[in-house]
Amino acid sequence: MKTIVQKYGGTSVSSIQKLKKIAEKIARDRVSGVNYLIVLSAMGDTTDKLVTLSNKVSKQPNPRDYDMLLSTGEQVSVAVLSMILNNINVNSISFTGWQAGIRTDSTSMMARIEAINVKKIKSEFMKKNIVVVAGFQGVDDKDNITTLGRGGSDTTAVALAAALKADECQIYTDVDGVYTTDPRLCIKARKLNKLTYEEMLEMAGLGSKVLQLRSVEFASKHKVPIRVLNAHNIGSGTLITKEEKKMEGALISGIAFTKDEAEVMIKGVKDQPGVAAKILGPIGDAKIEVDMIVQNVGSNGLADFTFTVSRNTLKKALQVIEKNKKTMMYESVISKRNIVKVSIVGVGMRSHAGIAGRMFKCLAKNKVNIRMISTSEIKISVVIDQKNLELAVNALHNEFKLENK
Amino acid sequence: MKTIVQKYGGTSVSSIQKLKKIAEKIARDRVSGVNYLIVLSAMGDTTDKLVTLSNKVSKQPNPRDYDMLLSTGEQVSVAVLSMILNNINVNSISFTGWQAGIRTDSTSMMARIEAINVKKIKSEFMKKNIVVVAGFQGVDDKDNITTLGRGGSDTTAVALAAALKADECQIYTDVDGVYTTDPRLCIKARKLNKLTYEEMLEMAGLGSKVLQLRSVEFASKHKVPIRVLNAHNIGSGTLITKEEKKMEGALISGIAFTKDEAEVMIKGVKDQPGVAAKILGPIGDAKIEVDMIVQNVGSNGLADFTFTVSRNTLKKALQVIEKNKKTMMYESVISKRNIVKVSIVGVGMRSHAGIAGRMFKCLAKNKVNIRMISTSEIKISVVIDQKNLELAVNALHNEFKLENK
Repeated sequence: MKTIVQKYGGTSVSSIQKLKKIAEKIARDRVSGVNYLIVLSAMGDTTDKLVTLSNKVSKQPNPRDYDMLLSTGEQVSVAVLSMILNNINVNSISFTGWQAGIRTDSTSMMARIEAINVKKIKSEFMKKNIVVVAGFQGVDDKDNITTLGRGGSDTTAVALAAALKADECQIYTDVDGVYTTDPRLCIKARKLNKLTYEEMLEMAGLGSKVLQLRSVEFASKHKVPIRVLNAHNIGSGTLITKEEKKMEGALISGIAFTKDEAEVMIKGVKDQPGVAAKILGPIGDAKIEVDMIVQNVGSNGLADFTFTVSRNTLKKALQVIEKNKKTMMYESVISKRNIVKVSIVGVGMRSHAGIAGRMFKCLAKNKVNIRMISTSEIKISVVIDQKNLELAVNALHNEFKLENK
Repeated sequence: MKTIVQKYGGTSVSSIQKLKKIAEKIARDRVSGVNYLIVLSAMGDTTDKLVTLSNKVSKQPNPRDYDMLLSTGEQVSVAVLSMILNNINVNSISFTGWQAGIRTDSTSMMARIEAINVKKIKSEFMKKNIVVVAGFQGVDDKDNITTLGRGGSDTTAVALAAALKADECQIYTDVDGVYTTDPRLCIKARKLNKLTYEEMLEMAGLGSKVLQLRSVEFASKHKVPIRVLNAHNIGSGTLITKEEKKMEGALISGIAFTKDEAEVMIKGVKDQPGVAAKILGPIGDAKIEVDMIVQNVGSNGLADFTFTVSRNTLKKALQVIEKNKKTMMYESVISKRNIVKVSIVGVGMRSHAGIAGRMFKCLAKNKVNIRMISTSEIKISVVIDQKNLELAVNALHNEFKLENK
């Protein structure tokens, strides 16, 4: 028997009206002989309100209490959706995370799903009930309620799909699917019909906010086909699945970018082993995340060490560097706020040479100066001036003919 | 080792500020070597808001979903109180109903507690943790979340006290304890130091809103000493406990009254077996609750049948009587809205004769006309005109010298 997992979150569950629309959609689209499991996030700003409540009490709340508090948000939405479904004679049952059999480790606020006992869910399927499960939460082996961290509902949906061996895990969002690049920046941007997990991981990691990184990793590991769909429109969305042989046709799948980066160049550091650790150690200790790292080989025994950080941590990073001048041993520091990172992503580059060359040539032709370069197996990223972002994305979109299927 | 159960509800948990005060009180008053278990209601109007949410979806929500929704209110308050306690270094742990081991039957919205497995609570006591438990909720044998009905948190507290063999179950409210009568009506009203379960049951049943009837029944059955205390004042409150030999001194413990009653007299019914059933059957079918019932022996084979109902159901009752005139077979119906019921309550009347006589004489002396009389083993109730309520209560308070200890 076919099983479909559907996850609704964000603005599609922001009000009772929206939940009624979801219920109507479920009632209208369901196919007899298919089991449906619905995963929900908390309604609208419920989670933010609960976080505010917790902040009023303590800046560092007891993590177990925090999870106890936050998990109520999703419990409310599943109760309400199930009420609506039952009210329109679509038999349904609502489950919290623990009722759905979702067992996690004991890391409060950022728990990982360890196992799912789907016995109860399956017995509800036997009764032809639609099962509505609270996302974002589970229970550890001592029956403490845990939460999976922000966006954890995607992970709940994928994990349930894996445990149920579901045919598809459908993630409903505000957009029609995953695009070749941001349509607000490039009018030729096209919705992709298919993507590999690896490509989606690179896209998601680069700030394409459609799916949570963890849920894609989970899906990839358990080979769960994910389909990103628009909750408000009809369409086939984007299917994210494992790589197929015949996929080699597409060189590049998309262009991702992050706008909120800043660059730090530490000039005149000793070109010797251990220097990177001396610089990045204190930065990491200050909980500042470093993204790209480039070290130039220098002349006369000195090198330049450059890295990017999130723009809102730049000031703190510079303070850390200033404070650790003695151990870091450098000549000067130059920082630049107005930079962005642009990346081309595609499994095709594994088997095709010359992609990097085409990218750099295209940017040069458009007079876009490249500040930093970093590559992975299926991704090439460049750091450029923010003012060139739109130009670069459009030029690359044309260069790799992303507007064509 | 001593164990104290404390229940806080209503306005004492209406805001974070109030919960902070409770936490400070717990921190200040706790005695080392005593286990503390705290039961909480939902914060302020949370439950009302959740009911409103449910009403927006359906007039008759699926009961299981309804319980799923409503139980989040108490989960929020225990999480927040535990956060506050941990924040001021009072080690505590919050439990939902199911985590606390509270097993109920499967009657959604009105579940009854069947058993409590206190293993987890006791193991937290061993770790010197204060245990904070969500009132009003439990879980049935199929792991469905259930709620106990309005005011169920009192029952949760008493049931936990019974299961833990607690030394006392303290119910914190907005008043200093149980009074001989309503102080707003009688300035001589005095707080009682002690009451028996039976007396409290009569007082509670008569609308003295300090404690939920069910929780007193539960306490009586399991011999749990209850102490009603003021959450905002210091004081010894009122202890409700089993009857002691030496209690016989007090004839009458208190005077209770209900103001929202109405009287229906059906005149000229056949004075024969089955007439009461013919009248009360349709009334009961219409879900109208009848309180006092009096039937006068009549002359010439006809009798008058009088009963009281809640004032807001009077209209409906009269419609039912009109509609069933043929089967009820009566001559006329007279109703009266402005009546009240006044009752004197006390275990002392078991062993002392003449209490009723003293009551009636006192009312006569004050020219208060008695419309109906009903008695139980430890209670005598009379129905009088509403305009005489204050006069009657004060006269009886004096007559039985309730101002003296």
